[in-house]
Amino acid sequence: MKAKIAFIGLGVMGYPMAGHVASAGYPVTVFNRTEARALKWRGQYSGEQFSTISEAVKHAEVVVTCVGDDNDLRQIYLGEHGVLANAPEGILLIDHTTASAEVAVEIGVAAAARSQSFLDAPVSGGEQGAKNGALTIMVGGEPTAFEQAQPLLQAYSRQAVLMGPQGKGQLTKMVNQIAVAGVVQGLAESLNFAQQAGLDADQVVEVISKGAAQSWQMENRSATMIAGEYNHGFAVDWMRKDLAICLAEARKMKTSLPMTALVDQFYADVQAIGGGRWDTSSLLERLRHFHKP
Amino acid sequence: MKAKIAFIGLGVMGYPMAGHVASAGYPVTVFNRTEARALKWRGQYSGEQFSTISEAVKHAEVVVTCVGDDNDLRQIYLGEHGVLANAPEGILLIDHTTASAEVAVEIGVAAAARSQSFLDAPVSGGEQGAKNGALTIMVGGEPTAFEQAQPLLQAYSRQAVLMGPQGKGQLTKMVNQIAVAGVVQGLAESLNFAQQAGLDADQVVEVISKGAAQSWQMENRSATMIAGEYNHGFAVDWMRKDLAICLAEARKMKTSLPMTALVDQFYADVQAIGGGRWDTSSLLERLRHFHKP
Amino acid sequence: MKAKIAFIGLGVMGYPMAGHVASAGYPVTVFNRTEARALKWRGQYSGEQFSTISEAVKHAEVVVTCVGDDNDLRQIYLGEHGVLANAPEGILLIDHTTASAEVAVEIGVAAAARSQSFLDAPVSGGEQGAKNGALTIMVGGEPTAFEQAQPLLQAYSRQAVLMGPQGKGQLTKMVNQIAVAGVVQGLAESLNFAQQAGLDADQVVEVISKGAAQSWQMENRSATMIAGEYNHGFAVDWMRKDLAICLAEARKMKTSLPMTALVDQFYADVQAIGGGRWDTSSLLERLRHFHKP
Amino acid sequence: MKAKIAFIGLGVMGYPMAGHVASAGYPVTVFNRTEARALKWRGQYSGEQFSTISEAVKHAEVVVTCVGDDNDLRQIYLGEHGVLANAPEGILLIDHTTASAEVAVEIGVAAAARSQSFLDAPVSGGEQGAKNGALTIMVGGEPTAFEQAQPLLQAYSRQAVLMGPQGKGQLTKMVNQIAVAGVVQGLAESLNFAQQAGLDADQVVEVISKGAAQSWQMENRSATMIAGEYNHGFAVDWMRKDLAICLAEARKMKTSLPMTALVDQFYADVQAIGGGRWDTSSLLERLRHFHKP
Ligand SMILES: NC(=O)C1=CN([C@@H]2O[C@H](COP(=O)(O)OP(=O)(O)OC[C@H]3O[C@@H](n4cnc5c(N)ncnc54)[C@H](OP(=O)(O)O)[C@@H]3O)[C@@H](O)[C@H]2O)C=CC1
Ligand SMILES: NC(=O)C1=CN([C@@H]2O[C@H](COP(=O)(O)OP(=O)(O)OC[C@H]3O[C@@H](n4cnc5c(N)ncnc54)[C@H](OP(=O)(O)O)[C@@H]3O)[C@@H](O)[C@H]2O)C=CC1
Ligand SMILES: NC(=O)C1=CN([C@@H]2O[C@H](COP(=O)(O)OP(=O)(O)OC[C@H]3O[C@@H](n4cnc5c(N)ncnc54)[C@H](OP(=O)(O)O)[C@@H]3O)[C@@H](O)[C@H]2O)C=CC1
Repeated sequence: MKAKIAFIGLGVMGYPMAGHVASAGYPVTVFNRTEARALKWRGQYSGEQFSTISEAVKHAEVVVTCVGDDNDLRQIYLGEHGVLANAPEGILLIDHTTASAEVAVEIGVAAAARSQSFLDAPVSGGEQGAKNGALTIMVGGEPTAFEQAQPLLQAYSRQAVLMGPQGKGQLTKMVNQIAVAGVVQGLAESLNFAQQAGLDADQVVEVISKGAAQSWQMENRSATMIAGEYNHGFAVDWMRKDLAICLAEARKMKTSLPMTALVDQFYADVQAIGGGRWDTSSLLERLRHFHKP
Repeated sequence: MKAKIAFIGLGVMGYPMAGHVASAGYPVTVFNRTEARALKWRGQYSGEQFSTISEAVKHAEVVVTCVGDDNDLRQIYLGEHGVLANAPEGILLIDHTTASAEVAVEIGVAAAARSQSFLDAPVSGGEQGAKNGALTIMVGGEPTAFEQAQPLLQAYSRQAVLMGPQGKGQLTKMVNQIAVAGVVQGLAESLNFAQQAGLDADQVVEVISKGAAQSWQMENRSATMIAGEYNHGFAVDWMRKDLAICLAEARKMKTSLPMTALVDQFYADVQAIGGGRWDTSSLLERLRHFHKP
Repeated sequence: MKAKIAFIGLGVMGYPMAGHVASAGYPVTVFNRTEARALKWRGQYSGEQFSTISEAVKHAEVVVTCVGDDNDLRQIYLGEHGVLANAPEGILLIDHTTASAEVAVEIGVAAAARSQSFLDAPVSGGEQGAKNGALTIMVGGEPTAFEQAQPLLQAYSRQAVLMGPQGKGQLTKMVNQIAVAGVVQGLAESLNFAQQAGLDADQVVEVISKGAAQSWQMENRSATMIAGEYNHGFAVDWMRKDLAICLAEARKMKTSLPMTALVDQFYADVQAIGGGRWDTSSLLERLRHFHKP
Repeated sequence: MKAKIAFIGLGVMGYPMAGHVASAGYPVTVFNRTEARALKWRGQYSGEQFSTISEAVKHAEVVVTCVGDDNDLRQIYLGEHGVLANAPEGILLIDHTTASAEVAVEIGVAAAARSQSFLDAPVSGGEQGAKNGALTIMVGGEPTAFEQAQPLLQAYSRQAVLMGPQGKGQLTKMVNQIAVAGVVQGLAESLNFAQQAGLDADQVVEVISKGAAQSWQMENRSATMIAGEYNHGFAVDWMRKDLAICLAEARKMKTSLPMTALVDQFYADVQAIGGGRWDTSSLLERLRHFHKP
């Protein structure tokens, strides 16, 4: 029989992920802080719903979490009503939150002290990837725990890769976000330039998007950027959380992220003009705030 | 019979391009400032070689040029020994140099005054694209001139697109270079971060290179960047020339390219450590100059 | 009779500050984590020395602290062996550490709950200012507490100003550091440029240091920068701590510090070449790491 | 008797400078492209006015120029109606325009070929300095020419210093502008931060303006910046011209000006919101465009 799964955090990402788990035939119990959302989930998928974390995890064999940030993780994992204190020994804990490597190690150590295994397993692929069960999962932790997790992760991912010990999953996700920051700012500047220069920006993209300037962002976001639509994915507020993690990590390593630091500040400008919930491609709107297309 | 082509400038790009023209059956005359290279070309392809521009263009129906920068263009096109003064009326002039929109308009106007047609037609695709006849060509000029040029351009391109009147070819190329600058700096910071964080950078790239961080640069340059090899393409000195053109153009338009301006300065650091001839991906080496991998 | 002062943290700054307090006739008890330094202090000034915070503060009327950062503050103020738990009700607490506004408010609230008054009172003026008793003190807290503190603060300051409620002292110090970051990077770039251009940099400074480019940094640091001496003040590691606080504060306010964020990254480069203990003017050395003078 | 002076360019700077020359008892002939302004000058000061450069310089012993940029200099100095062709042999030529080192050398060489001496002599001190005869003059050229110029320069300057051969005056001015760029952006970020943090920005400036953050800009521009007044000096459009010269010069030297390049782009944002004629301190308004005070 399949392992009993407790799923905590049914947000934009967690909701469909938990759905895939249930659809794959795992017995699932869910918990969501805002209970209405958990009830809705239970209406749509087969599974049990609990009002407390402790109940949700008590009889689980695997706990999966997907919440917001470091603070959320400390709240749901640590403390007397949290996951660690209430889940059984020997349990496997998998966290899909994008958070710091530090908190991953902190929870990992605390889990080990209770003979529990923890994997930091942030994802990429966005809401679309979660809905389609096609996420990429970057995992940090013990190889045996990773092996154990594999079949479950397949329920909602295209690939799941073990990157090293605890924290390395988060660090890999950071590498991803840093690369994204450069691509998007470059794209924003190039599209703004194109329009200021009186070019047909869509046509320009068509012409240049096969060569050295090509990127996933160029292929998937240019058209909406040009149209001034910024509701197609990962929000600026989330991105700033992620970049703050990257920058804090780089600070500890005494290494340097000049462009990333600058783009992070540019996202503050986006927030200030009301774009906290716009998607990350709204760096173009920031330029347009000065330079009307 | 096919049109008589005069090809001026047999550098890294022009040499194979002129070769493709000859191989496609056009009668070709070539001129190269450093004659040895033109003689070598004549040894490899069928065509005539001349020691002066005026002789090379006198009986041509189309003149194709591919030289270094604005100054080079002014030298070969204008002046009494130049292309305009010595090519016949009605001739079609196609320039593949990456240069300013300004010089394109300047030559275009001077050509029109002599009833000659000028197209600014910068390319992307690099040495590889030139050798394989698979360049992308971004064209500015009159539609009729563009139509006339089409069959010839097919000899060495995958696509050639008319972007608007004179100068718009150059402006499109600029959009390309701006996007590249962001992508490459983002990639350099992300790979440096990965290595500082103790990750296997090649593995990280494998994992993240299908999603939102993906780019042509990530797919085609990460491995060599990680290996510290920077001899795979477009040189930093050339890139700075191009970025200078972008920045000058933006200055005229009073629009802003903050990340591009910064990356341009970072390339100055690369030049200062001897990397003027390294390829553009050497922004990673700049970071490594401080932060040893 | 003068109030009994407990002084905690006899570092570069605290040591001479506590000395001025003793010299001004206050009865002083000191505590330093590394006891040797406290013993040395007692040898030089008149005052008592204790091995624990609780003893040092038990009979004090004012507690003054000057430690490293937020974590240090939480350690010495909070917890059962800390200042708050062991100092009497009604006591005045003055902290000269450069730290976050957040920790100031946190300690302030905890102090108020015990009927104690807390002032965040970061300083500027450096080691020299501390030794000469000529610091500037930027204070956050209650006006009555500030009034009470005034005579004591005069023992080691040139000016002490109440900027608003708790946290505003720290915020004022942040404004200072942000301005410094811009001045120093500008100065570093200008001196590097001068030398690259073959100018006599000292002479240039002499000529331009009365006009629009003038700054305290230019007047007091140019000569040592040009000479490549970076041991004249506030260390890069400290500066990065301060800039991290500024950037975190700006993040919360969703306001933007683009140049500050960039300079902070440049300081990471300085750290990476071994300059963590160099003074902040070593941004010039970072440029020289690429561009030899 | 005092030498006969021809003064060309009666703009914001040249007008009062030429006035000081006349007031000092030199016989002056003036030329201004827009004649009305020259006539106004002649109404206010004693001196002759001519409608062409050639007449104005024909009988002069010293020519002083103060126009806009490199192009203007080429126009007024070179060509058959220009200064060089029409001024007598042996004449001393002094240019106060802020321009490139390159054009200084170019004119210097052309002048020498006619046995004329050229000094590049850009100024700092602004309109106020020009009016008060208190400019700082940074001179490039031959020592003998400089000696000859000294008494005249004293008519409108506080100090005039020979920095080296032709071009070195301009390079020194560039050093000045680079330092200014850093100071002003740092100041703008710090004042914006102060206001976002709810501090009284004027009070903050009062407190911090004696220490490490102090600058001429802080002392002379903070109050107007806080008040949102940007009509107190050197215009953004002029500053961008100057920064373009700095950046072009650094490009030739392959040295790096990262912060300067970034601030230059920020000034493009200021231009785009209509601030081309605002003074350089309007970098604060750029931040306020996102972040309302
Ligand atoms: N959205 C995306 O495209 C992507 C997101 N991510 C990352 O995935 C994570 C989740 O994102 P997303 O699903 O979009 O976020 P949402 O805000 O939609 O969901 C967050 C979930 O976490 C719960 N939660 C937050 N804090 C707590 C807490 N302290 N205690 C209990 N539950 C809590 C929320 O409960 P409640 O319903 O009560 O608020 C909610 O269920 C984030 O770390 C994000 O960075 C990664 C890749 C893509
Ligand atoms: N140095 C300068 O020029 C300036 C410094 N500042 C700020 O002033 C503060 C102090 O700087 P400075 O004196 O140079 O720093 P030092 O490192 O010289 O001194 C720090 C002091 O704090 C003590 N300390 C640190 N952590 C703890 C802890 N957890 N528990 C008990 N004691 C602790 C240290 O004790 P121990 O001896 O055991 O290490 C030492 O006495 C910093 O916040 C700094 O940013 C502000 C302006 C200028
Ligand atoms: N303003 C300031 O605060 C400072 C300015 N400077 C520098 O000093 C120089 C002059 O500045 P400013 O006086 O403010 O500028 P203005 O624009 O006020 O004056 C420019 C002067 O140059 C003349 N001029 C420009 N181009 C030509 C040309 N092609 N042929 C003939 N005459 C020409 C103009 O004539 P017309 O009247 O016909 O336009 C005018 O007299 C600039 O290089 C500037 O960067 C340096 C320090 C401070």
